[in-house]
Parts: sequence; structure tokens; C-alpha cells
Amino acid sequence: MKLLCIDRAAGSYYDEVEKALPKHAIVTEEKKMTLQEAREKLLALQAKQSAYRHALGLMSYDGATAAPKKTAANRGRSMSVLSEEIYRLSTGEETVSLLDYLDANQEELNEKERRMVFLMLESIRDMQAIPMAEYIAYNKLRVESDDVWHTAKAANDFARFEPYLEKMFETKKRFAAYCAPDADPYDYWLDKYEKGLTREKCDAFFSALRTHIVPLLQKIAASPQPSSALIKGNFDEARQEALARYLMPLIGLDTEHVGLSTTEHPFTTSLGSHFDTRITTHYYPEDVSFSMYSVIHEGGHALYETGADDSLAYTVLDGGVCMSIHESQSRFYENIIGRSLPFIRLIYPKLKELWPEVFEGHAPEEMWKAVNKAEASLIRTKADEFTYCLHVMVRYELEKRIFAGELCAHDLPAAWNALYKEYLGIDVPDDTHGVLQDSHWAGGLIGYFPAYALGSAYGAQFLARMQESVDVSDCIEKGDFGPINEWNRAHIWRFGRLYPPAELLERVLKEPFNPAYFIRYLEEKAARIYQW
Amino acid sequence: MKLLCIDRAAGSYYDEVEKALPKHAIVTEEKKMTLQEAREKLLALQAKQSAYRHALGLMSYDGATAAPKKTAANRGRSMSVLSEEIYRLSTGEETVSLLDYLDANQEELNEKERRMVFLMLESIRDMQAIPMAEYIAYNKLRVESDDVWHTAKAANDFARFEPYLEKMFETKKRFAAYCAPDADPYDYWLDKYEKGLTREKCDAFFSALRTHIVPLLQKIAASPQPSSALIKGNFDEARQEALARYLMPLIGLDTEHVGLSTTEHPFTTSLGSHFDTRITTHYYPEDVSFSMYSVIHEGGHALYETGADDSLAYTVLDGGVCMSIHESQSRFYENIIGRSLPFIRLIYPKLKELWPEVFEGHAPEEMWKAVNKAEASLIRTKADEFTYCLHVMVRYELEKRIFAGELCAHDLPAAWNALYKEYLGIDVPDDTHGVLQDSHWAGGLIGYFPAYALGSAYGAQFLARMQESVDVSDCIEKGDFGPINEWNRAHIWRFGRLYPPAELLERVLKEPFNPAYFIRYLEEKAARIYQW
Repeated sequence: MKLLCIDRAAGSYYDEVEKALPKHAIVTEEKKMTLQEAREKLLALQAKQSAYRHALGLMSYDGATAAPKKTAANRGRSMSVLSEEIYRLSTGEETVSLLDYLDANQEELNEKERRMVFLMLESIRDMQAIPMAEYIAYNKLRVESDDVWHTAKAANDFARFEPYLEKMFETKKRFAAYCAPDADPYDYWLDKYEKGLTREKCDAFFSALRTHIVPLLQKIAASPQPSSALIKGNFDEARQEALARYLMPLIGLDTEHVGLSTTEHPFTTSLGSHFDTRITTHYYPEDVSFSMYSVIHEGGHALYETGADDSLAYTVLDGGVCMSIHESQSRFYENIIGRSLPFIRLIYPKLKELWPEVFEGHAPEEMWKAVNKAEASLIRTKADEFTYCLHVMVRYELEKRIFAGELCAHDLPAAWNALYKEYLGIDVPDDTHGVLQDSHWAGGLIGYFPAYALGSAYGAQFLARMQESVDVSDCIEKGDFGPINEWNRAHIWRFGRLYPPAELLERVLKEPFNPAYFIRYLEEKAARIYQW
Repeated sequence: MKLLCIDRAAGSYYDEVEKALPKHAIVTEEKKMTLQEAREKLLALQAKQSAYRHALGLMSYDGATAAPKKTAANRGRSMSVLSEEIYRLSTGEETVSLLDYLDANQEELNEKERRMVFLMLESIRDMQAIPMAEYIAYNKLRVESDDVWHTAKAANDFARFEPYLEKMFETKKRFAAYCAPDADPYDYWLDKYEKGLTREKCDAFFSALRTHIVPLLQKIAASPQPSSALIKGNFDEARQEALARYLMPLIGLDTEHVGLSTTEHPFTTSLGSHFDTRITTHYYPEDVSFSMYSVIHEGGHALYETGADDSLAYTVLDGGVCMSIHESQSRFYENIIGRSLPFIRLIYPKLKELWPEVFEGHAPEEMWKAVNKAEASLIRTKADEFTYCLHVMVRYELEKRIFAGELCAHDLPAAWNALYKEYLGIDVPDDTHGVLQDSHWAGGLIGYFPAYALGSAYGAQFLARMQESVDVSDCIEKGDFGPINEWNRAHIWRFGRLYPPAELLERVLKEPFNPAYFIRYLEEKAARIYQW
């Protein structure tokens, strides 16, 4: 999961903020502000915002890593104060005047400045469209709903969570109507996580995937299964951490700017700017691959973040452009690189060095098959590369039906279980392992899931472009990540949020996005693993 | 070391702040502000300040714990922005008007409110007395000087540090003249770390100590020495951490509100309020006692912080009143409790459980003697209870001479070495183990050292009062810290900063402060250890 991007899109930096400002800030009588002054003010404003985001991001990070158990309320108070401060700063009269002035003088601005003004005005307009009282109620709901979700999940008690979820969906529909009264409300939320994404595009994408993945999985199920015994056992935390610290620089992370901590759920966050990025992992003794691939996945996010051009630091252009492009990078490093045979060959000596009692006498090929075993399973975050998108499709389908008024929260468990049966062919034993598994809906992240599948597909098409100039397999096997990372930096990372996702994709791909690349990638990989 | 208190006293929350406001804020035409409104505003203002301090404190804490190596500049930018924001908030026109209004209506306020207004006005007046450009230069100097000190210490190169130190002393003299033109400049700085402390009081105190400690140490040196072999060896970090996590609740820390991390130098800090307090330690494999006593020492600071009455949270009255009282608590738990025989008896089974290969077959008395061995040594932070105050006296003596104009920075190494020879009878081999050992002067903490020795002496006199109603030894041996902690809470902790230190001491001691208690405590303890 990528925290920073979520926050930006959902505006969670502004959680618990009282919208104490007039809905439409009054533009003061234009003072004699020169363009040069306005440009400088634009940068100073963003630097200030970055500092507040640094503080808020660090408080969240601290809450997930080092903070004692019962300090959430104390932290919540401080976050609420600082959120209100950044809200006032970002939407205040002075800021709106400045941005309007710059917007009216667009032709005098450079490309970066134009984009900054656009993004900042866009976020202000959204915030202003929602009545203050409802915005406060929504933020309260998110906190409560997340809290109830934790309890409900642990107790397998969907009924407890249901009213909150119902209210969350209602709120999201209403907000969409405020912010984009002419748009389809579900499209409005899809667009939040990837500018320009629509239900129509998602439908086409998922339908193409389903057409090919379902028969592919049937063929896999009919084949002899590799064993995953090699990666299961009792792997001590100290050596798992040593493996994590070996992998980080190996894939090109600059550990003087990227930190590693442990949390319940792995994530990536940048603090203040891309000069300080943190990834987290979780060590499960019973499965060495969980932390290993968490580190590589979050490492992909961190490579993207830290790869932004240094000139973008302390501006809204720093970091990654949207969730799906972010996932394209994390899943590229996790799956396309990390689960490839050359990569397993590359790191196998290290695995043997760390756990000779486990890995001596086994071949890298055995490990490679173990980490690529395809299997219909219950939990999205533990799903393999082949079945993963089906998990995403279940969630997308349900969100669509809810926005279409065909389902309400009450119907979700049954609908969830039916779709898991239909798409993955498995029975869901309880809601803890079913509809209650993800935190997204509780936190208000609706329209977010497609990004995971799209990111995977973008990554496969990026690979095809990259291979025109880089011998990717050869680089991986040699442990020479320079050419791979330089390609990603040159084509994707360095731009930060400068280009909208559609424009970025066009620049990188030089042809329209086409899920066929991803499908072919999966089919070829399955053929190698299952030796068809 | 106790960070929070340092920050408050030295105003380091305001580091790198541009003093962009008029020196004397203009009080606006008095609006019809009711007293009730003003009281509410007073609390709201402090809650806001707490949130900013939370952010700044957490950034420092993060820098010392989890942050990647090369992120200091990035963090510095954010801290600089937030420091400027809290500076504007704390010294702005609106705040000054509010405080002046409340100050003029003192008789209508309750005791806590009066004290809040007093403390807040006091800190504003100090900040306003210093010309803006000089304040900025000072904060720049602190950052540079600390940086150069690190390098100079590592390289044993005092000459490199000397010009910064000279400038630091000059600045401190000048600032004292701005803020308190009629006071003795060294008294001004002593007063910063304990309100009302003067050179005269320190002289009397240190002279009493020296008169008794020097002959005591001579007697100790002439006695057969206990062995410290039991606590030296190769103690793995995992078990040292287990010991730390056993000790924290044992002495009464609420680990749901007090966290533990590792840092280069141990410290304690509270974030936002006393509801979230962090202590840190450092595990040295070669000496099990270092982390053990760091945890108990910092635990004493944390007990004091978290023991403040909950109604003081999010106000300037939260936390501890000053450095010396803070050290009285940390050194009380570390030495009076932690280095007592009943305490060693209490924890010995745990030590045997953790390291049977070391502690089985030895008696608690052997451990007790090992952790109390008196020995003239070079490094203050590693000094035993008997010689510790002599280390402090060296620093006090040098600061006094510098403020008297008898010494300049250039003379310090020679003067330092001469005093170590005179007070402790040892030769200093190099400046790394001499005048460069402490970070305080580099960071602008001048007049701070006496608090360490005063705190030790206060603790011994507190013990005498406590023993009138609590059987301290018996409580310790039973592991029943309730009565001890309740006494400290009732007499010291719960008041936070409500009473100035002199008044607090008077209330607790019911007689004047008298170093004879501390001297007698040391003499009796030495007699038991050395079996005179």
C-alpha cells in the first residue's frame, strides 16, 4: 500500500478539519503583486505545506511504528490542530488570490508552475464544494468507521460494521454530486485515484483480463503443482531483517534516504519531500517470502518517490502522479523483477548464506516456482500474481453495483461470497476472510481498488518498452539494476506529478494502453513455471 | 539527558526562527473580550502550541531513532518552517494582547491561569529583548557549532571547535545583557535552568560537596576495591532489551503511554502532552549496566512527566518544572533506588533467568558492589554516584571563569585538564576524553550543568522526607513501587510547572535545601559498600 498517494487523492491531510472558512473565499482587491513576487510566493506556500505534511505524515508513521499503544488520542489532537492549520493555509483568502492571479496569467508561467497552480486550485475547489458540516461529519465517520472495522473484522461481525459502511457509501455518493454534479458519481471517485479513469475504461480492461485469466487459471489448476515447502518454515526475524537490508541497496534504493521499519501492514511514505522516504515490512516467521516481497514492493514505491527530480522537492509536483502508476512501479519490482528466475538466481547465494539449513541442496528454480505458485485463495494481499486481479475485480464489481443502487451495505457479504465463488471458485468461510478483509472502504477509499490491477498491467507494457533498449533479464541476473532504474527514472520517476497519468502513459508507451501485454506476460510466465 | 526541559528553557523550539515580528508587539485597541472568552482563548492557544511542539519534538525524536542518515537537511527545512509558525503564534500581536489583558486581570484568574500567563509572558519578553538579526545568527551558530563539535570530538581537534565555542560564549554574554541588563550574566543563565539559582547558591553548594566528597574519595581509594567483572562481558542486545522491558513496568512506568527506542545517547521526551512519553537507551554488549541504568534514569524522567496531573495536559504547565528537579527524579530512580541493595536483590532472579551463564553462582551483593564501585574516571556520563558531582564542578568552575573574563575558549583544554587533575586526580589523555566530551556548550547549553549535581542532592533530601511515611527499602525489596511513586506524585509530579522550583522545594522539604542530606547519604552508602 502507498500512503502518500492515498492521502493526496483523498485529501486525508485535511481529516478532522473544521471547514471554518467561507465556501467561496473572497478575492481581495488586487494588490500590486508582480508576477515574480507571485511565483516566489507560490514556491514559499508549497514549502510551508510540505512542512505541515511532513509533520502529519510523521505522526501517522510514528503511530504505526514506535508509538506506545494508548497514545492515539493524544496524537489525534495534534494532527487535528495541524490539519486545520494546513487547511486554512491552503484554502485561505490569500492563497486563493495568489492562485487565481497566477491562473489568470498562465501564459507567463513555465510548465511546472502551470501544473502546480492547476493541482492546487483543483484541490481547493473540491474542498469548497462540500458543505462544512458534512465535511466534518465525514471525517468523524472515517475515524469511527475505521475503528469499528477493526473490531468487526476481529470478531467476524459484519453487522456491527454495516451501518458505518452504509453511511460511508451514502456520503461518497453525495460528495460526488457536490463536486461533480454532471459526472457519473462512481466515475468521479475513479478519477480521484487516476485522473481520467472511468467505469467504461475499467469495464473494458477487466473484461479483457477476465477473458484470458479465467481459462489460464483453469489450465494452471489442471497442471501438477509446484511445492512451496521451501519458503515455509521458521525463519527468524534477525535474518529476515538482514535479507531486507541486503535487498534494499541491491534493487537500487539509496538507504541514506530510504529507511526501513516494521509495522502490522507494510507501506511507503515520504516525509517532507522525496529526500526522506520510509518503507515498512512485517516479518512472518512461517513464510520468508512475505517480508522479502513486501520490501521489494515497497521498495518499488520508494524508487518512484525518490526518483523524482530534485527540483520538484517541496512542491506539489514531488512524489508519484497517482495510485495506478505508483502500483505499476511497486508491482514491477515485486513481480516482474522480484519473482523472475534471474532474480532468484541472483539472490540465492544470499539465501543460502543466511539459512544454509534451508536452502543448501535446493536449486533456485525450486524457489522460483514456490514464489510463483498460482492458487485461488481468500486474501487479496497474499494472492499470487496470476489470481491477484480477480480479487480486485470482485471489489470493483461490488462498488459499481453499490453506486448503481443495485446493492446496499447489507447485501455485501452475500454478494462478496458469490463473486469469490464465481471468479475464483472458492467458498468464503467467514466475513473476516471475506468482505471485512480490507481497510479501504472503512477509511473512505472507494474507487481505489482498480489502481492495483491497472498498475500491474501498465508495468507489463512498460517492460515491453524497456526491453527495446535494455536487456532486462541479463541486468537482473547480473544484479546490475542501473539500466533498469535509469530507464524508469528517465521515463517515469523524474516527472513526479508534472504530467497527468494519461499524458505520462502516452509519453512512455508511445501507443495506447493495451492489457494484452499484461495478459501475454502472465501466459508466458505460466507456461515457463508449469512447463507447458 | 532530558530533552523537553532543555528545549523549554533554552527556547530551542524557536531555533532557526526569523524574528520577523516587531520587537514590541502593539496592543490593539481593546476589543470587548470577556474574561471567559479570554480564558478559553488562553487554553486554545496552548493546545495549538502543544501540537506544534509535538511535531517539532517528534521530528527530533525521529532524527535520533528511525530517520535515514542523510535526511537531516530535509528535516531541518520542515522544522524551520514549523518553528517560525509557532514563533509567530506565540509572540504575535493577538497573543500578546490576550496575555496582557489576562495579566491586567490577574485577580480574576485561578492559580493555574495566573501561572500560565506568567510563564508565557516571561518567554515572550526574553525573545523580544534580543535583536532579530542576532537571534537568527545565534540559531545558525548553534547548528554549525554542534556540527563542528561532532567532527572535532571524533578527530580530537579542539582547534577546529574553538572559534565556534568562543562565539557561543560571547553570544551568551551579550544575550544575558539584553535580557537582564542589571543581573550578573552567568546568574542569568543559571536562572534559565532553575528559576532563582545564582552563582552564590551554587558556590555554597559545591563548596559543601567538595569539602566532604574529596576526603570520602580518598578513603575509598585507600580501601580494597570490589570487582566489576560480573557486569562486564558480552551481553547480547535481545536479552538487554528484554531486561529493559522488564524494568519499565517494574518501576511503575505505564508502557501504554511510555515507549522505548534505542539511540546513540539516551534521552526522554514527551510528545504533545505527558500522555505520550518516550525514553531511549543504548545497548553496549560489553557492559550490561549501561542500558539498565539508562532505562531507570530515563524512566525517572518519564515518571515525572507522565505523573503530571491530567488537567495540565496541552498547557505550558505540563511536564517538569526545571532541569534540576527533573534530574532529582531521574537520579533518584537510577541511584537511590536502582543502585540500592534491595533493588539488586529484587531484580537478581530476572538477571539469572536472562543470563544464567553469568549470574548463577554469584550473590546479589556482588552485583550491588559492582554497580557502585567508585573510581575517578574521565567521562562524566559514565561516572559513578560518588565522583559524579566532581565532573559537574569542573564544568561549573570553567563556565564561571569564562563569564568572569578570566578564561577564553582557547584556554579551555589546559584549564579542563588542570581541574581534572585537581578534583579527580587523573590525567586527561586527549580532548576527546576531556573538554570535547559533552555536547552542551556546542548546543548553547551554558549554565546547565549544576542542575545535574543539584538534582542528585535534592533527591537525597526528598528521600529523607519520604522515609517519614514510607518504608522505602522494604517497598523496593518487595517490588512494590506504589507507595514510593504515590509519594512523588503527591509531592512533586502532579504539579507540573505550577510552582516555581524554589516554592516546590519548600513545599516538599518543609525546611531549606541542605546538601548535608546528600553528603550523609553518600557517606553511609560508601561505608556499607566498602564495609568500614
